[in-house]
Amino acid sequence: MPIPQHLSLAIPESSLPRIVIVGGGFGGLNLAKGLRKTKAQVVLLDKNNFHTFQPLLYQVATAGLEPDSIAGPLRKAFDGQANYLFRMVKVTGVHPSKNEIETTVGSLSYDYLVMANGSVTNYFNKKDFRPKVLPLKRIVHALDLRSHILQNFEQAVMTKDEKELEKMMNIVVVGGGPTGVEVSGALAELKKHILPKDYPDLDFSQMKIHLIEGSDRLLNGMSDFAGKEALRYIGKMGINVQLNTFVEDYDGDSVKLNSGYIESATVIWSAGVRGNVVDGLDARSVERSRILVDEFNRVKGTENIFAIGDVAMMQSDKFPSGHPMVAPVAIQQGRHLANNLRRKISGSEFIPFKYFDKGSMATIGKNKAVVDMPNGMHFRGFMAWIIWMFVHIMYLIGFRNKLITLNNWIWSYFTYDKGTRLIIRTFNRKFLRRPAAINKI
Amino acid sequence: MPIPQHLSLAIPESSLPRIVIVGGGFGGLNLAKGLRKTKAQVVLLDKNNFHTFQPLLYQVATAGLEPDSIAGPLRKAFDGQANYLFRMVKVTGVHPSKNEIETTVGSLSYDYLVMANGSVTNYFNKKDFRPKVLPLKRIVHALDLRSHILQNFEQAVMTKDEKELEKMMNIVVVGGGPTGVEVSGALAELKKHILPKDYPDLDFSQMKIHLIEGSDRLLNGMSDFAGKEALRYIGKMGINVQLNTFVEDYDGDSVKLNSGYIESATVIWSAGVRGNVVDGLDARSVERSRILVDEFNRVKGTENIFAIGDVAMMQSDKFPSGHPMVAPVAIQQGRHLANNLRRKISGSEFIPFKYFDKGSMATIGKNKAVVDMPNGMHFRGFMAWIIWMFVHIMYLIGFRNKLITLNNWIWSYFTYDKGTRLIIRTFNRKFLRRPAAINKI
Repeated sequence: MPIPQHLSLAIPESSLPRIVIVGGGFGGLNLAKGLRKTKAQVVLLDKNNFHTFQPLLYQVATAGLEPDSIAGPLRKAFDGQANYLFRMVKVTGVHPSKNEIETTVGSLSYDYLVMANGSVTNYFNKKDFRPKVLPLKRIVHALDLRSHILQNFEQAVMTKDEKELEKMMNIVVVGGGPTGVEVSGALAELKKHILPKDYPDLDFSQMKIHLIEGSDRLLNGMSDFAGKEALRYIGKMGINVQLNTFVEDYDGDSVKLNSGYIESATVIWSAGVRGNVVDGLDARSVERSRILVDEFNRVKGTENIFAIGDVAMMQSDKFPSGHPMVAPVAIQQGRHLANNLRRKISGSEFIPFKYFDKGSMATIGKNKAVVDMPNGMHFRGFMAWIIWMFVHIMYLIGFRNKLITLNNWIWSYFTYDKGTRLIIRTFNRKFLRRPAAINKI
Repeated sequence: MPIPQHLSLAIPESSLPRIVIVGGGFGGLNLAKGLRKTKAQVVLLDKNNFHTFQPLLYQVATAGLEPDSIAGPLRKAFDGQANYLFRMVKVTGVHPSKNEIETTVGSLSYDYLVMANGSVTNYFNKKDFRPKVLPLKRIVHALDLRSHILQNFEQAVMTKDEKELEKMMNIVVVGGGPTGVEVSGALAELKKHILPKDYPDLDFSQMKIHLIEGSDRLLNGMSDFAGKEALRYIGKMGINVQLNTFVEDYDGDSVKLNSGYIESATVIWSAGVRGNVVDGLDARSVERSRILVDEFNRVKGTENIFAIGDVAMMQSDKFPSGHPMVAPVAIQQGRHLANNLRRKISGSEFIPFKYFDKGSMATIGKNKAVVDMPNGMHFRGFMAWIIWMFVHIMYLIGFRNKLITLNNWIWSYFTYDKGTRLIIRTFNRKFLRRPAAINKI
């Protein structure tokens, strides 16, 4: 797409070194915050104007929370930080030899470049059915998924054809990682507590939630204990799990598995993510869709380009194929790199990154969660669920988000109600006209 | 559009009389609630699955509230009400001779029909610029407007061309009724308290808010006192008002007024509404886009068709051109008609409707509101603003909405902050596929 004549990135010249950060996720946000007092010009680029707290996306999708509870404006995070500039653009390429990046509104030179643009849904080259499945990686996905599910029930009420009804009532979740497990659990709670009240004319014993996982366990990456307990909870909640099962095809009506077929109008694709690697880096520095970095998060073969978070692969004895693609790694690498860049600018040496594993957790439903502690201990049940809530609230940026989320959760806990089951499909007529050039979704 | 073969309205046969209500706004919602214990089958049809509290739409548009604060699921409002059926469809016509209505998924017979489908934005036959202006009548409009305004500022930051910048920084509000006045005021507060912090590289003295009104005063329909005080507040807040001024054309860049031109990328169209009259009624029962009804809200020339709220025109000595098109009329007519239909079904006579004027109010900004009391007294200032807030909170349906809205308002009051400045443009790829037939926006 041609760059509109009247637009430019308009970054003022500065005698300070320029640090360009691509992406305002957990990594980029914490890096930019860590550079607050560094003598540098910090430029943050993102195609959205907000940070998304992705671990709670599934709650937006299942009508538990509204987007503003889990998203924070990126500009607001830096109100009053003078050395900080935000531009809402998409980065389209990098030219390491020229120390320049390309964006949808022109190019920009950098002294230091940090790729923090995370990951995108991995469709494993299943191009044919990609437009037919529902991913769950961004706010718009969550809103679309919510509207899609509710709209299906509105349609189910009016469906006389048994086969069509079956399609409307079946939901297939692909991928038994944290997202797949959490969204299945939330859907099972909707099915049990909310939907029968809203749709008294539907028989919800006909509603089936299928969780499809390719490996032989749930929550890969967590302990065996966590995987087994999650499987037990999932079974208890009436979700049909198929392990060692792959999706081979989907035509919008029927899911073809290696073990058979499921009729469904709703396939939620949470089968995995891959690094969001921008064009222009040396092919030798990219492995399995992630950027190879050294122990300082510096991209292999470069001096002043860094990568952090999901998109980075820092290989080590303990992590031969890089760290897990989770928020804590991105947060810690962002903070650590801020420190290293500050040291570099003031003439000190880099310090190697060390990951501090704080444990991991997943929630399947009310009072149903699993926690792996870093010391090898495991929890499940009510206490695990309380810990899960506490940690998620603590990490939500900004007091306001915390307050609203807490409100919603307390309300849901005591009433089993969810507030936000609105079908809102915006019509983007207006946006086709104007700012398409600066931000292509 | 052809009706999909597998869909039907699927309304069960019943020995009870069937009351079909078209629209779940203030009128339809209160009517359906009032029929809770009536021996009738109540069928509510709406193209959305939620009720919208329209008086606060402007707060969603100006990033003060999220949609779930001002919208409530229509199904939830009737959880446990056995004689109530909801269908999310668009009504496309009525056949009085057959006692049938047409919808996007087929026809339905009725014993009593109530048109409660409110009003739509009135573009006064300005077809050319209709797709270029931003209405503010529905949730999607509010979300689109919010994203549009914020996106303009993101673009303004990167605009080097002075003329383009001017377009980005100018906002034109057309219509000086409550919506126009309230949205102008909220924009002026954004300009003063929020935007300069978020966009330190923009000069907000260049941001101009223009309020264009065709008559010689603001808040037509309220007292002279209210109009004058509103004008004073609006001036104090730095909004440019042009009275006796009309929009003649808009090409997406330049607004042509009868008094000159304003360059602007944002024209908010709050110039008025007109009744949303469905095809099929006798032309003699429709006047100036509203349905003529007698003192029982019965459509002229019919026995069993009624109209309430904005779409109805009940002419009387006191209201020669019908009641004002405001929420209290719709609420009262909905409740009154519920009572009358109950009486009818149990063999009693209709009672004529009498409008109880509770006064009217508008808010321009923090501590800035005007109130007309029904006894002819007027208020303005802090007390009026408190009354405005109290009344709006009281009328918001459902405790949950009240709690969240109150939270948001208290937060904004003390911090001058607004939480929800997210640019979210959903991509409705998925919705193009499937349920288009049952619900055309």
